[in-house]
Amino acid sequence: MTSALLSDLATEIIIPVCAVIGIVFSLVQWFLVSRVKMTPGPPLNNNKNGGGFNDSLIEEEEGATSFLFTEYQYVGIFMVVFAILIFLFLGSVKGFSTQSQQCTYDVHSMCKPALATALFSTISFLLGAITSVLSGFLGMKIATYANARTTLEARKSVGKAFIVAFRSGAVMGFLLAANGLLVLYITINLFQMYYGDDWEGLFEAITGYGLGGSSMALFGRVGGGIYTKAADVGADLVGKVERNIPEDDPRNPAVIADNVGDNVGDIAGMGSDLFGSYAESSCAALVVASISSFGINHEFTAMLYPLLVSSVGIIVCLITTLFATDFFEIKAVKDIEPALKNQLIISTVLMTVGVAIVSFIALPSSFTIFNFGVQKVVHNWQLFLCVCVGLWAGLIIGFVTEYYTSNAYSPVQDVADSCRTGAATNVIFGLALGYKSVIIPIFAIAVSIFVSFTFAAMYGVAVAALGMLSTIATGLAIDAYGPISDNAGGIAEMAGMSHRIRERTDALDAAGNTTAAIGKGFAIGSAALVSLALFGAFVSRAGIQVVDVLTPKVFIGLLVGAMLPYWFSAMTMKSVGSAALKMVEEVRRQFNTIPGLMEGLAKPDYATCVKISTDASIKEMIPPGALVMLTPLIVGTLFGVETLSGVLAGSLVSGVQVAISASNTGGAWDNAKKYIEAGASEHARTLGPKGSDPHKAAVIGDTIGDPLKDTSGPSLNILIKLMAVESLVFAPFFAAHGGVLFKLF
Amino acid sequence: MTSALLSDLATEIIIPVCAVIGIVFSLVQWFLVSRVKMTPGPPLNNNKNGGGFNDSLIEEEEGATSFLFTEYQYVGIFMVVFAILIFLFLGSVKGFSTQSQQCTYDVHSMCKPALATALFSTISFLLGAITSVLSGFLGMKIATYANARTTLEARKSVGKAFIVAFRSGAVMGFLLAANGLLVLYITINLFQMYYGDDWEGLFEAITGYGLGGSSMALFGRVGGGIYTKAADVGADLVGKVERNIPEDDPRNPAVIADNVGDNVGDIAGMGSDLFGSYAESSCAALVVASISSFGINHEFTAMLYPLLVSSVGIIVCLITTLFATDFFEIKAVKDIEPALKNQLIISTVLMTVGVAIVSFIALPSSFTIFNFGVQKVVHNWQLFLCVCVGLWAGLIIGFVTEYYTSNAYSPVQDVADSCRTGAATNVIFGLALGYKSVIIPIFAIAVSIFVSFTFAAMYGVAVAALGMLSTIATGLAIDAYGPISDNAGGIAEMAGMSHRIRERTDALDAAGNTTAAIGKGFAIGSAALVSLALFGAFVSRAGIQVVDVLTPKVFIGLLVGAMLPYWFSAMTMKSVGSAALKMVEEVRRQFNTIPGLMEGLAKPDYATCVKISTDASIKEMIPPGALVMLTPLIVGTLFGVETLSGVLAGSLVSGVQVAISASNTGGAWDNAKKYIEAGASEHARTLGPKGSDPHKAAVIGDTIGDPLKDTSGPSLNILIKLMAVESLVFAPFFAAHGGVLFKLF
Repeated sequence: MTSALLSDLATEIIIPVCAVIGIVFSLVQWFLVSRVKMTPGPPLNNNKNGGGFNDSLIEEEEGATSFLFTEYQYVGIFMVVFAILIFLFLGSVKGFSTQSQQCTYDVHSMCKPALATALFSTISFLLGAITSVLSGFLGMKIATYANARTTLEARKSVGKAFIVAFRSGAVMGFLLAANGLLVLYITINLFQMYYGDDWEGLFEAITGYGLGGSSMALFGRVGGGIYTKAADVGADLVGKVERNIPEDDPRNPAVIADNVGDNVGDIAGMGSDLFGSYAESSCAALVVASISSFGINHEFTAMLYPLLVSSVGIIVCLITTLFATDFFEIKAVKDIEPALKNQLIISTVLMTVGVAIVSFIALPSSFTIFNFGVQKVVHNWQLFLCVCVGLWAGLIIGFVTEYYTSNAYSPVQDVADSCRTGAATNVIFGLALGYKSVIIPIFAIAVSIFVSFTFAAMYGVAVAALGMLSTIATGLAIDAYGPISDNAGGIAEMAGMSHRIRERTDALDAAGNTTAAIGKGFAIGSAALVSLALFGAFVSRAGIQVVDVLTPKVFIGLLVGAMLPYWFSAMTMKSVGSAALKMVEEVRRQFNTIPGLMEGLAKPDYATCVKISTDASIKEMIPPGALVMLTPLIVGTLFGVETLSGVLAGSLVSGVQVAISASNTGGAWDNAKKYIEAGASEHARTLGPKGSDPHKAAVIGDTIGDPLKDTSGPSLNILIKLMAVESLVFAPFFAAHGGVLFKLF
Repeated sequence: MTSALLSDLATEIIIPVCAVIGIVFSLVQWFLVSRVKMTPGPPLNNNKNGGGFNDSLIEEEEGATSFLFTEYQYVGIFMVVFAILIFLFLGSVKGFSTQSQQCTYDVHSMCKPALATALFSTISFLLGAITSVLSGFLGMKIATYANARTTLEARKSVGKAFIVAFRSGAVMGFLLAANGLLVLYITINLFQMYYGDDWEGLFEAITGYGLGGSSMALFGRVGGGIYTKAADVGADLVGKVERNIPEDDPRNPAVIADNVGDNVGDIAGMGSDLFGSYAESSCAALVVASISSFGINHEFTAMLYPLLVSSVGIIVCLITTLFATDFFEIKAVKDIEPALKNQLIISTVLMTVGVAIVSFIALPSSFTIFNFGVQKVVHNWQLFLCVCVGLWAGLIIGFVTEYYTSNAYSPVQDVADSCRTGAATNVIFGLALGYKSVIIPIFAIAVSIFVSFTFAAMYGVAVAALGMLSTIATGLAIDAYGPISDNAGGIAEMAGMSHRIRERTDALDAAGNTTAAIGKGFAIGSAALVSLALFGAFVSRAGIQVVDVLTPKVFIGLLVGAMLPYWFSAMTMKSVGSAALKMVEEVRRQFNTIPGLMEGLAKPDYATCVKISTDASIKEMIPPGALVMLTPLIVGTLFGVETLSGVLAGSLVSGVQVAISASNTGGAWDNAKKYIEAGASEHARTLGPKGSDPHKAAVIGDTIGDPLKDTSGPSLNILIKLMAVESLVFAPFFAAHGGVLFKLF
């Protein structure tokens, strides 16, 4: 066992420097985007509705800001209550004693009291929550800033529009990744001033950061998801299906709500979500590492290996971005999708090199980790392989997702073809496609888990998750690019711009649809790994050696856990359905009662539709949120840690499947519709044009897919992570006082 | 530990006597049905198509018989190959040695050689397969015999039609239950002539019976399911949606295929399926009991407790049936559903008494069972509670299923209401309903498992499953009643009978739809318990003490296992979709090319549609069948028993959810459509009438639900049971030679 080549001082410098580089790069991108002037030039037609370009932009941004503030108010109350709960539950473990205690793993040392862990966990929980809110909010601001600029650039060329959309995505990606890293790094350093050599307690307290990030992400995803899809489904059902007016037509009263929804759901929700994943995977890796030989021997550089991987990730993503924005130029529509796909490949290849370097300079050649009660020796090349297997599994999942959701391949084309015989066969084929798309990602995840678990137990799984998320800046950039392009198209339509401009933004958007699906694939894959790592950390912290399926306590947990994703999806889908019904009634009412609306002579009442979406999402996000947040508390307190272990494992293995199939089914339906609309091939033209029977069937599929791919699906990966991280934070309480029900009988 | 009150001789007499009573009762019911004369009287209109009543009946029965023979040919080949595999795999465990070996559990005795187990397992596998084929075939014969008689009686009154349909269901229910019991009983006695005191070997060999029954059931369900739904979806898409002709109209070329499908899918498939469940739960209980103190001490009466429970079940169901057919009379349509529901309640209450009696006379007051390496003392009252908890959980699942699928309650009415805004919201609400309907059944199953597992480990779970299935004769009678009524309606329509008669058969059918969903609920609930018990038996037989989720081998098994139901559903749904597309094209072709078909002047070419369904189902049942049958073999051989344990647990906890939600979503859509069509309430009338936009949206939902509720859903419970029983049969091989891949590295 030699120590790491990299000195502790170097580590202390490298991490913040990389984070700052990320932030500076993000600001540079923002500056470049801001150089697009917002003075609509001559090619821009005047809007028939008279309201005009800037009006609707202002309404959109105001709508998004005001919704987020309303949402944050409600969630804020929840956060404060939950913070108090954390303090009380964790403080009660040792009866709020201020006495130092013997460490759990390093039995020769003294650790800080449980009360300190309670206090610092609460603080880091709040820090995580605030960082998450900030990530979502900034993302939204950037997106609304970028939307109109993308539209304006689309007047010049598709390449210029692409650059603006992509740069804006990069602003968000780098800002979030760097910010998450920096806050975490600073928090660790500040906490260390109190904890000193008690790393066990330090990194236990840090897990609160992951919990805070993830709980905010849950509400963001669910609330935003309900908002956006209620508006989208409502707008489409009346506008496209009944009134036969185009998507995003300014005559549609729900169109502003729809655009606001894209910003609060797809952008702010996704920002919070991926920040949560990143925070959790870092926390999982850190807490597991803290009880390895790094923690016991206080090897600072090796201990911060997870943060070093993320730091290198930022640099790698920076170089990767230049390939899209500077090294090559997009000249035609057909270049867009390859350019985005190349981003994934380039970042993965470069990151492999980066991880190799970090692994060999930051880790000792061998070290021991804690594996459920036994020590296990791990070599640095093994840990390198763990990170790589996660990284490459992410790429495989990305490509499989692309295959099943892009209309360039046969699965989506088959779904489009099934629209010939109506909506029913379209839905049957779409559901079957989603189910089928689960197979390869699950094998990829299983292989990652097997390799990383075998090499380095739960630490291996945690760093594999980190590997998958190490290129998060690029992933987020690509992911945010989608809704930005989507909204750019909406703005073009609303401003009554020419057909040619709309075609360009549509092409940007079609590529964005696929990349959004890829992003969701990444998010789900990494969520599976993260939650397994968190689960492992929970089990270690709760002092369980074995989670035996052959005991009734564990088995019923497994069964009920596997049911939770269904319960959760039932709630969120029903919420979208009900809210959409209300939206449909309002939109119909406006079309029927406002004279001149259909003819474009009167302005619709956008505000009422915005209010319907806002009210529905605020009201409806509470029950699914409560289900996820309360389940671990109730199960742990009443049934104890074994049953909770079962619940976590069950919801993990079942939730992944539901999430992947829901996302891909929805993505496929969306692109099957776009395939028919675009009519780019002989086959596609036999199904179209817009308004044909097959196209109507495709629109029905697309509408069904909306809540699947943008509400239930992406929220599910938060469900599985959040329950795991929450169990981890509360583990000492459950271990001390849990299982009340079984103790009674 | 006192011995049982019931003497061995009495046990030897009671079981076959009860079975024979069941068979005789079934024949009496058949005789009563056969008294309905098949000479169509004056009220029957002449069929416009000229083909007439009897012609189409003959075509229907011939179609069903010829399909089943074709299916059995293909499956027969598979069975022979698989039988050889069983013999070779199990024979190779001890290198085909004919030497006796030390027993595994009763270490002081000598047991028969592994080669004998191989041979007798193969024989019992074939016996199970043949009994299953016979069950399906007889069920189909009874149903085709009963369909037309139900139609004819519907001319007189709804009560008379109900009695015929219900008696015919009872013929099937009792014949299957009694037959399954008798064959099992005889097999045990015959095998004992060779095995003598080696009960370990004897009951291990008997597990082949469950495997045989279940493998046949899989092919029956999948093949039949694809057949019936391809025809149904195809017929509906052109007939109802495009041509606007009623369901089952003789002008529709796919109508005969549709009716044949009901007989081969819903009846023959279901018969095989429930026989399989029954066989497996008996085998699971027996094999677990054989290694308990009953087996070691050779207490014959206590050993055959599972068969005694089933015997009492037959008598209880017999009495229950009389309540529907003799004690009360159906006077109006509204009496039908309560009468069917009362069947469930009465049989459950009576059975509780029956189980109490059996438990106290057939079991010693306390005994020990084998609990993964440790002995556990169990009292007879505990075992009584185990059976009861299964029995009553079945009733709860039945009622919850009814609540979510009957149009008398708000969930289905909400789904119907969502049709106002089109097919998309209907699908969103329907999917959400299915997901939600999972919650209570899962809690019911979890409680059953917890109670029975805690009291009596895997033996408790096995007898809980048996409890749920103990009223199988009544369950099957109710279940078979559904498709019989459905087809009676079809025949009335085809024969051009009056609207009044069609209304009566529709009312019978609507109640049948709900009971079919209840039957599926039972099937799935019991499948969960059975497969857990089989899983436990497998684990014991494979010599595993712990299935620890915290090992990579087990966890990846869990993850991949949870994926299998999705893979399987993708295959079956895609198969139905593709076959339906072909059917649609053929039906359209006939309408377009056969002159006078729409006017009822020319006869459609029914045979081509029958051929499309037959070819599709034979071809398409192979891949999903192979997936299920090969997975345990491949996983066990390559990855070993731990990974296989994970796969079994994963597919169990995930498959149950998919199966329940798929069945209930489909059932709800079907009844939402019927709710709009019947127009029995103010609310329903605002959505109708037939042909309105909401009704069209409801038809789309119904069509999507077809493969969910009749192909994927019900096949999934076979998937989880079959993989478990197969693993159990092959356990000695896997334990001896499995895990090749891990041994290599």
